Amino acid sequence: MPTMLGQNQYGKAENRVVRITREGSTHHIKDLNVSVALSGDMEDVHRSGSNANVLPTDTTKNTVFAFAKKYGIESAERFGIHLARHFVTSQEPVHRARVRIEEYAWDRIATSDAHRRERGEHSFVRRGQETRLAQVTYDGERWEVVSGLKDLTVLNSTDSEFHGFLKDGYTTLEETRDRVLATSVTARWRFGWTGDGQAMPDWETSYGRTKRHLLRAFAETYSLSLQQTMYRMGARVIEHGEEVDEVRLSLPNSHHFQVDLEPFGLDNDSADGAVYFAADRPYGLIEATILRDGCEALIPADLTNL
Amino acid sequence: MPTMLGQNQYGKAENRVVRITREGSTHHIKDLNVSVALSGDMEDVHRSGSNANVLPTDTTKNTVFAFAKKYGIESAERFGIHLARHFVTSQEPVHRARVRIEEYAWDRIATSDAHRRERGEHSFVRRGQETRLAQVTYDGERWEVVSGLKDLTVLNSTDSEFHGFLKDGYTTLEETRDRVLATSVTARWRFGWTGDGQAMPDWETSYGRTKRHLLRAFAETYSLSLQQTMYRMGARVIEHGEEVDEVRLSLPNSHHFQVDLEPFGLDNDSADGAVYFAADRPYGLIEATILRDGCEALIPADLTNL
Amino acid sequence: MPTMLGQNQYGKAENRVVRITREGSTHHIKDLNVSVALSGDMEDVHRSGSNANVLPTDTTKNTVFAFAKKYGIESAERFGIHLARHFVTSQEPVHRARVRIEEYAWDRIATSDAHRRERGEHSFVRRGQETRLAQVTYDGERWEVVSGLKDLTVLNSTDSEFHGFLKDGYTTLEETRDRVLATSVTARWRFGWTGDGQAMPDWETSYGRTKRHLLRAFAETYSLSLQQTMYRMGARVIEHGEEVDEVRLSLPNSHHFQVDLEPFGLDNDSADGAVYFAADRPYGLIEATILRDGCEALIPADLTNL
Amino acid sequence: MPTMLGQNQYGKAENRVVRITREGSTHHIKDLNVSVALSGDMEDVHRSGSNANVLPTDTTKNTVFAFAKKYGIESAERFGIHLARHFVTSQEPVHRARVRIEEYAWDRIATSDAHRRERGEHSFVRRGQETRLAQVTYDGERWEVVSGLKDLTVLNSTDSEFHGFLKDGYTTLEETRDRVLATSVTARWRFGWTGDGQAMPDWETSYGRTKRHLLRAFAETYSLSLQQTMYRMGARVIEHGEEVDEVRLSLPNSHHFQVDLEPFGLDNDSADGAVYFAADRPYGLIEATILRDGCEALIPADLTNL
Repeated sequence: MPTMLGQNQYGKAENRVVRITREGSTHHIKDLNVSVALSGDMEDVHRSGSNANVLPTDTTKNTVFAFAKKYGIESAERFGIHLARHFVTSQEPVHRARVRIEEYAWDRIATSDAHRRERGEHSFVRRGQETRLAQVTYDGERWEVVSGLKDLTVLNSTDSEFHGFLKDGYTTLEETRDRVLATSVTARWRFGWTGDGQAMPDWETSYGRTKRHLLRAFAETYSLSLQQTMYRMGARVIEHGEEVDEVRLSLPNSHHFQVDLEPFGLDNDSADGAVYFAADRPYGLIEATILRDGCEALIPADLTNL
Repeated sequence: MPTMLGQNQYGKAENRVVRITREGSTHHIKDLNVSVALSGDMEDVHRSGSNANVLPTDTTKNTVFAFAKKYGIESAERFGIHLARHFVTSQEPVHRARVRIEEYAWDRIATSDAHRRERGEHSFVRRGQETRLAQVTYDGERWEVVSGLKDLTVLNSTDSEFHGFLKDGYTTLEETRDRVLATSVTARWRFGWTGDGQAMPDWETSYGRTKRHLLRAFAETYSLSLQQTMYRMGARVIEHGEEVDEVRLSLPNSHHFQVDLEPFGLDNDSADGAVYFAADRPYGLIEATILRDGCEALIPADLTNL
Repeated sequence: MPTMLGQNQYGKAENRVVRITREGSTHHIKDLNVSVALSGDMEDVHRSGSNANVLPTDTTKNTVFAFAKKYGIESAERFGIHLARHFVTSQEPVHRARVRIEEYAWDRIATSDAHRRERGEHSFVRRGQETRLAQVTYDGERWEVVSGLKDLTVLNSTDSEFHGFLKDGYTTLEETRDRVLATSVTARWRFGWTGDGQAMPDWETSYGRTKRHLLRAFAETYSLSLQQTMYRMGARVIEHGEEVDEVRLSLPNSHHFQVDLEPFGLDNDSADGAVYFAADRPYGLIEATILRDGCEALIPADLTNL
Repeated sequence: MPTMLGQNQYGKAENRVVRITREGSTHHIKDLNVSVALSGDMEDVHRSGSNANVLPTDTTKNTVFAFAKKYGIESAERFGIHLARHFVTSQEPVHRARVRIEEYAWDRIATSDAHRRERGEHSFVRRGQETRLAQVTYDGERWEVVSGLKDLTVLNSTDSEFHGFLKDGYTTLEETRDRVLATSVTARWRFGWTGDGQAMPDWETSYGRTKRHLLRAFAETYSLSLQQTMYRMGARVIEHGEEVDEVRLSLPNSHHFQVDLEPFGLDNDSADGAVYFAADRPYGLIEATILRDGCEALIPADLTNL
């Protein structure tokens, strides 16, 4: 037979699990989208269709919902660890489990004091800003946890320049000393934690700090190029978070073009601000890995498919 | 000729205009998506292709960007009024203009005191919750302003029942005394203001108050049906906002099914909360108009295409 | 109480029903997305939450699946008629039913003769072109059937001009005698058929003919404006289909800008064709109703939300 | 400084280029979405913001449009080769270029003989089935070409079983001897061609053959598991295409649940076919690499982000 099987994985994707916990009349909510991918002794099922080594994806789905009840959802990362350990340790043919999770944040809806006293707090509004990400991989020996976020849209209305670049016969772009810099942040960061013997990071605290430093590095960097801003974002996360060894960033340069209003007798370049056309496509796409000195790069290069 | 022309309109849709204003080193941002639709003496262009009465959609686009500079964007509604008045009063063949606007909210990124002192405030993060909507229609005599929002996702984890409903041969649903009630609010509300002689509402204040009451009515209504909750949402907006005459709501019933965990020896119905499967499709879709007594219903019934 | 209830409707939306029929080893497939909206005596449920007049949306879902088995799916329109009649005639509080259907077309996958002989034909590939639409409304007396399609993307690479238009202080567009004309057709057409006493149109034949004439009118009209092309599309459907009384079209003008390649020493205007930038936003949006002489316009003006 | 720079790349993404060529009054169309990613001596721009080694993404965009005119678009792969070679050979700091392309297929609109004779053929309708993919990577020495497709939705209405699988305490799925098997194919295949000295494959012919064999392997495999079907799809491409060394497939198991209609007195399991509920989420996700014997796996494992 002239073909052979390479890397393969399977599981149930996008299990939408919502967990409510009740402290009296005060409720809490966790809202996840969980995808499981298992690998192992799977040569047979690909060759002959024998499912003897295949735990059905339906079973992985059931396990996700059952574990949400059994262990609760302290954090997406912790929940992923429970699941990955279970699949690898309970089924011999499964050698590796990867659990990917999206998390959607909710805020409480402010209600009247009277209503809160009488009925408690159990009303939520989706925050709607970034989507939080977590990925847990386990092969029976070593853990890899990569957290992240996507769709965090940010904009600096000044303190961004772009000049001194290479020019060739296809270059028409003019240099600029003041432009809008806008992007939608996709980020992944890998933790140094790899083993059950080590102290586990506080995933919730780490996430809040990482997001805050991504935002502040974006805002506080006087930018000569989006690459420079991106590097500062990754480096700042590592500098302020000893638990993080590697950061991968994918930043579209969401172009805001200053509109030429001269044909209409209007000066769009005055000191009181300007009007911009926010373009969709094409856009610049800037991507890099930033590493703690001496650490290895393990996050794949392409976080999006473009 | 056996055919005739009915209602028609044309214009440039989805002009993505971003307006930055500067107060020293403190910047402000308005971020809109503006769609213009014009109607009038357009028989000829449909019949013969004569464009003598057609202001190009490219011109309507230019006008949107020029007006953002010329008049600023105090509010989406005010901006729409400037545009609609211009098209109807400046071009004789144009008898009616409708301007639809989506608005995206931005928050400031918190930066260090030192950075703020030295460099000012000009960094923003997209809030990402609901999208604000505004629609202004003008026919040269009468104004109609309809504001709204979409994609405001809310959830009550208790205080919702559903029972006592009609049953027929296709009914298998069980009655329930405690369920999750979740929806994604699409709302439009029409203002009583119709003329230049009347005092114009404060559009920004009105929007904030309306959103707040939609949220609170959702949270504070003990619900026997989503229709009842919906009616309270619309009625509360009218009761607390004398500027609003009509509210149209479209509420998908985003089903959260309590998962049966008994096969796994788990009780998912206990006092400390439960685990739910958040379903995508199908979903209930509940829609209604709520009117101030004596007012006419003018908002079209279908806000979505389903 | 100072508020009153206006138009309202409810039901289960987006029931994804797939019906396989078997003629021996030859299978056939119908793939629909069905949304039901019911209206009637619903004051109570909105005011007090009493569900005594409410047939659960879950029941409407069950009915959709049961009817797909019971009556089959000869056509989307016919299936909608079965459903609408059932809801209005079987439940007294329901006075009006509207069934909206999307249909996805499938082609057979070509297999070997041997396989076809031995195993039959039961493999399909989604065609993926336009989505077919059908809407059936019944109030116990009168039927309204509106069919349609969306996402039918078409392009003429010549035979389109645009000049002689109105100019004002915001006009910068240059006239053109040769441009690309591209759009994505959204269309609805209403049938004259309104009653059980009349002969019912052949819905499948009518759909094929209508789509064919929309395409041919787009292709064969030498265009001086998109409005002219649009009118011909609607008129041609009516001229060739005696069963159709009204057509509503919504056509984005999907701009293809001829790229200026002069800075690179290239002539992009030569006789052998040109290179275009296909823009996303903004776009022109051109909409109209075309009517058979003497018929009333009943299809709402806005088929999209822009 | 405690951080270091890892893999990085940048360029202009999603350049929407449409190329019309004219043979007299017969026109041809190529419709691409082109994304460029460049890597090389980029330490400085990340560290200090110096753009001395940075060819602007705006220039990469201009080059895409200029090359579409200069070289035409014989195939997406050939076009990508022109672009990648240019960036690597013309700019010393650029060491590697990767060009990713989506291609959208168009069919001719059938027009009358008279129209065709008089006006020619220049009207197109988007085919709308799968999106074709091509990726070309060049580092100055070696070429890697990976072609592919996405969103090819297929369904077998019988000849699929699933049984004999692993069971644990979370398994509730029943075994089945006859089910619907449906998926939406995402595929990438890598060519053996790596160098200018070798004869280049005929990219257009190869694409057509590969798609045909993916479809036929799906249709003609009697399936005991989706893994088995997937393996046959990849193996068949390699068996029938000597130019292909590696295939990566990502197949969601798009569940079609046979609806229980017994509560309504209907037998949904009869010989004349059944009614199914087509579910959205969750879904199985089955992925594998299939290799020509002795070849190395180079396509990354995750084609989607789930």
